[in-house]
Amino acid sequence: MWEKVFAVARRRGFIWPAFEIYGGMRGFYDYGPLGAALKRNIIDTWRRYYVFQEGMAEIDSPNLSPEDVFRASGHLDKFEDLVTVCERCGSSFRADHLVSIENADSLSADELWQEMKKEGVKCPECGGPLSKPEPFNLMFRTKIGPKGKRERTGYLRPETAQAMFMDFPSLYRYFREKLPFGAVQIGKGFRNEISPRQGLLRLREFNMAEAEVFFDPENKRWPGFERYRDAEVLLLPNTGGEFRMSLGEAVEKSIIKNEALAYFVGLTRSFLLEIGIDEKRLRFREHLMEEMAHYADDCWDAEVLLSYGWTEIVGIADRTDYDLRRHMQFSGESLKARRTFKEAVEMEVEEIVPDFKKLGPLFKGDAKRVAEELKEMDASSVSGDIRVDIDGKEYIVPEDAYTIRKAKKKVSGEDFVPHVIEPSYGIDRILYAVLEHSYMKDGDYRILKLRPSVAPVKVGVFPLMPKDGLDEMAMDIHRRLSAAGIRSVYDDSGSIGRRYARMDEIGTPYCITVDYDSLKDGTVTLRQRDSKEQERVAIDGIEGVVSTLIKENTIN
Amino acid sequence: MWEKVFAVARRRGFIWPAFEIYGGMRGFYDYGPLGAALKRNIIDTWRRYYVFQEGMAEIDSPNLSPEDVFRASGHLDKFEDLVTVCERCGSSFRADHLVSIENADSLSADELWQEMKKEGVKCPECGGPLSKPEPFNLMFRTKIGPKGKRERTGYLRPETAQAMFMDFPSLYRYFREKLPFGAVQIGKGFRNEISPRQGLLRLREFNMAEAEVFFDPENKRWPGFERYRDAEVLLLPNTGGEFRMSLGEAVEKSIIKNEALAYFVGLTRSFLLEIGIDEKRLRFREHLMEEMAHYADDCWDAEVLLSYGWTEIVGIADRTDYDLRRHMQFSGESLKARRTFKEAVEMEVEEIVPDFKKLGPLFKGDAKRVAEELKEMDASSVSGDIRVDIDGKEYIVPEDAYTIRKAKKKVSGEDFVPHVIEPSYGIDRILYAVLEHSYMKDGDYRILKLRPSVAPVKVGVFPLMPKDGLDEMAMDIHRRLSAAGIRSVYDDSGSIGRRYARMDEIGTPYCITVDYDSLKDGTVTLRQRDSKEQERVAIDGIEGVVSTLIKENTIN
Repeated sequence: MWEKVFAVARRRGFIWPAFEIYGGMRGFYDYGPLGAALKRNIIDTWRRYYVFQEGMAEIDSPNLSPEDVFRASGHLDKFEDLVTVCERCGSSFRADHLVSIENADSLSADELWQEMKKEGVKCPECGGPLSKPEPFNLMFRTKIGPKGKRERTGYLRPETAQAMFMDFPSLYRYFREKLPFGAVQIGKGFRNEISPRQGLLRLREFNMAEAEVFFDPENKRWPGFERYRDAEVLLLPNTGGEFRMSLGEAVEKSIIKNEALAYFVGLTRSFLLEIGIDEKRLRFREHLMEEMAHYADDCWDAEVLLSYGWTEIVGIADRTDYDLRRHMQFSGESLKARRTFKEAVEMEVEEIVPDFKKLGPLFKGDAKRVAEELKEMDASSVSGDIRVDIDGKEYIVPEDAYTIRKAKKKVSGEDFVPHVIEPSYGIDRILYAVLEHSYMKDGDYRILKLRPSVAPVKVGVFPLMPKDGLDEMAMDIHRRLSAAGIRSVYDDSGSIGRRYARMDEIGTPYCITVDYDSLKDGTVTLRQRDSKEQERVAIDGIEGVVSTLIKENTIN
Repeated sequence: MWEKVFAVARRRGFIWPAFEIYGGMRGFYDYGPLGAALKRNIIDTWRRYYVFQEGMAEIDSPNLSPEDVFRASGHLDKFEDLVTVCERCGSSFRADHLVSIENADSLSADELWQEMKKEGVKCPECGGPLSKPEPFNLMFRTKIGPKGKRERTGYLRPETAQAMFMDFPSLYRYFREKLPFGAVQIGKGFRNEISPRQGLLRLREFNMAEAEVFFDPENKRWPGFERYRDAEVLLLPNTGGEFRMSLGEAVEKSIIKNEALAYFVGLTRSFLLEIGIDEKRLRFREHLMEEMAHYADDCWDAEVLLSYGWTEIVGIADRTDYDLRRHMQFSGESLKARRTFKEAVEMEVEEIVPDFKKLGPLFKGDAKRVAEELKEMDASSVSGDIRVDIDGKEYIVPEDAYTIRKAKKKVSGEDFVPHVIEPSYGIDRILYAVLEHSYMKDGDYRILKLRPSVAPVKVGVFPLMPKDGLDEMAMDIHRRLSAAGIRSVYDDSGSIGRRYARMDEIGTPYCITVDYDSLKDGTVTLRQRDSKEQERVAIDGIEGVVSTLIKENTIN
């Protein structure tokens, strides 16, 4: 099945192997004119949900990032596969792909090595002996800056998320210091796969759309849950079983842990159906405990049934405060938000009490300012000698010049590290799934039943014959549709039947034919792809007719 | 000036230094929510011109590319700056930036070294001695694939153009083998600048939009020159002088070499004015002979006057057949198009004449097929023993088993390498120029006079007071505008004057205020940023009113 979809996609200009004249390179594809348009339409739909409907802030950050970022994110230590190299022919492989047991990707290098020996695994290419598996980091590494002291190690980002974490202080200000809010990014991710395969499903350079939604952990609700409360979804919780139920019920029964997670499950379902994913081949599966990252509170994947089997295309994870905490720890900057109490409360706090008898002789006229500065500091973060900076001047306060005491104090609010819920979408996989779910075959006749809103070409415009002024009239209609932002194709070669077939094969929902009656009465034939119905409509105002058809066939 | 524009841009969420919590990295910026929206609007406008108006094919190819590509493109040899390193402190610098003569960037390493010694140049940071300049390739290099025999060297592309050249065979098929046609790409480019500076003007990772337009060299015309024939532009030809004249006249007087180049000058002017570049600060400058690449036939830059001086933001070059020829040479694949003659002509051609007396004994029953295959081959590309492949079987035809003879033959067409005209746009520079040309200051009052079509936020919606139902009514209007795809912001904090000021500062063209009259008569105040005029309009249908305003203020 996928070979057929791919063959059509390739012949018609959806996807082409990249660098093909140089023999290509595994894991890299070009989107041709139709694929690029389909991708853009999918992304525009995604943006309509996340930016326009939800009011999230879209940012755009570099693909290249310095090493610090990935030390904090954990990618430098953990983003790796175990690779084994053939000692005879030099080929390398992901070791977990060579053994026959399940969940081999969760084994350690030693465990995998034992299993490889037990199964007697040899090189799949030449039958030679294989080396003990070693970790291989999947980030592409490079050097930034000229040789010399300014040179720094950089990596191509494996995901877009980190920029939203690093920009938290700016984003928090942009949203006027109110939670919850979301920031999104649509862009490239990179992963140096050891053996890329399965077409668009496992690429070395891929497109993703990610949202990082920041919450006060005491209130994991996203406004407007009503919108998706009654949506029925197929859920596979990690406690077993498969249930079709409304999201409202799933939250009540604690099958989904909080309302915000459930909200993004609902939004994801709505988005996927709108772009043309078949609801009967869509389910939401909760990560098993052993799949889940240690810091994650819960994680649900949207999976679609493809000819490869059930395939993850979206992940929705409650990442708690892990990411912001890590970046705080590695950067030394505060990534906290502030929670204001309804009314000031009396709390037991720790205070620094300066000892003026020690400070006076030490700092003379500055002693008072040093003391004031000490009182302002966070008592829980100091110990031993304290360094105090005042207007660029440095004072070292010895540990016998102050004490720390507990005191009751009126406090109007407190700082905390926000929690993050992350809906993360693999755009290439989604695009491929849309193609597969839209592909229909009737004998030798192939139709891509793409929804009008995502179809790369909306209208084919044909003159019945390329003469007698029919061609000029058709070209004029084509130009008017294009000027109105409706992607149209003019085609005057071959029979009308063949031209319909070409449009059906690339998923064009509407075709307009100019015939001899058009010259007399100013109407044309409008044919709908799915119903095959034809009706005559006036040329005057045809842009409006087509855009209404496209809008009417958009669900939300 | 640029510091002020930058300061506003930064505070209001247009641009943020990337990785700022880790001290940042020179040459890398994040677009914040407003900057990302402005960039998207500029790109969408560009796409409306190139994809919708001109019918070009947009493709989307990887940032990472294998080494072969850049060996062919010339970047592996030529894409470099000369760098000098301080022998005391280890800092590195572009050597041409340290000497005082003009056009230092065209000097060789030896010449620069002589000049540095003559001027007695020392390290600008520590005063130490500097090394002799050495070439430094500006591409970011990485390794693709696992260690071992499958590992390949890859680079981040310095421009998007190469994919359009490599995909020429697929694109030519997509356009049904008819020239001229154009292919475009909008995406990232990378350049490992030795010392990035000037904010968005010299980035290490940047956004670009490029078109590669393929022509039959015998006919460098792009359809529809009428559209821009009368457009008046300020031209600086490389023969000296400065002339304001129509593009029609410029072509007639051969100031611009061909109609196609002039067409893209006209299109570029129209695009730049539409997004808000000030016509009085725009000119088109022809490259000096010494600036032009040896293969280029002509090249015109769009330059805008910024506080940095006249700055190139678009280049429009006639690259002849250089790129396709190089890729043919390095890949061994044909990147030719075919020109059909009006009627078949008799031409002298070279033919391979198989010698059956030699072939028969050699290949027995296959001899006839081998002979047929030989006749089909291009006689100009063979010499010595010829390898013939038939259905995967290989035959070596010795050189005494054939002869080559000249013959007269009826020929219906011929193959040729197309020429390329490349309009190439630096999106970050364009975006910065739009900000600078839109920035107005009246005392302490700052306004960004962004055109409605590119403004990141189109409407601010305010309740006069955040109570008595005014807030709900305003929120409802905000939601309806958002649902209609009109980017809107709800704001209920501070005085109305302050809210107008906030919107003016980020370039929002329209503001809507809900007041107590709104509750009674269902109308609101609509205020226009530039005229400061206010009128009352009905809430019912307000989406239509705003989108009409946006459209009316779009020029083309």
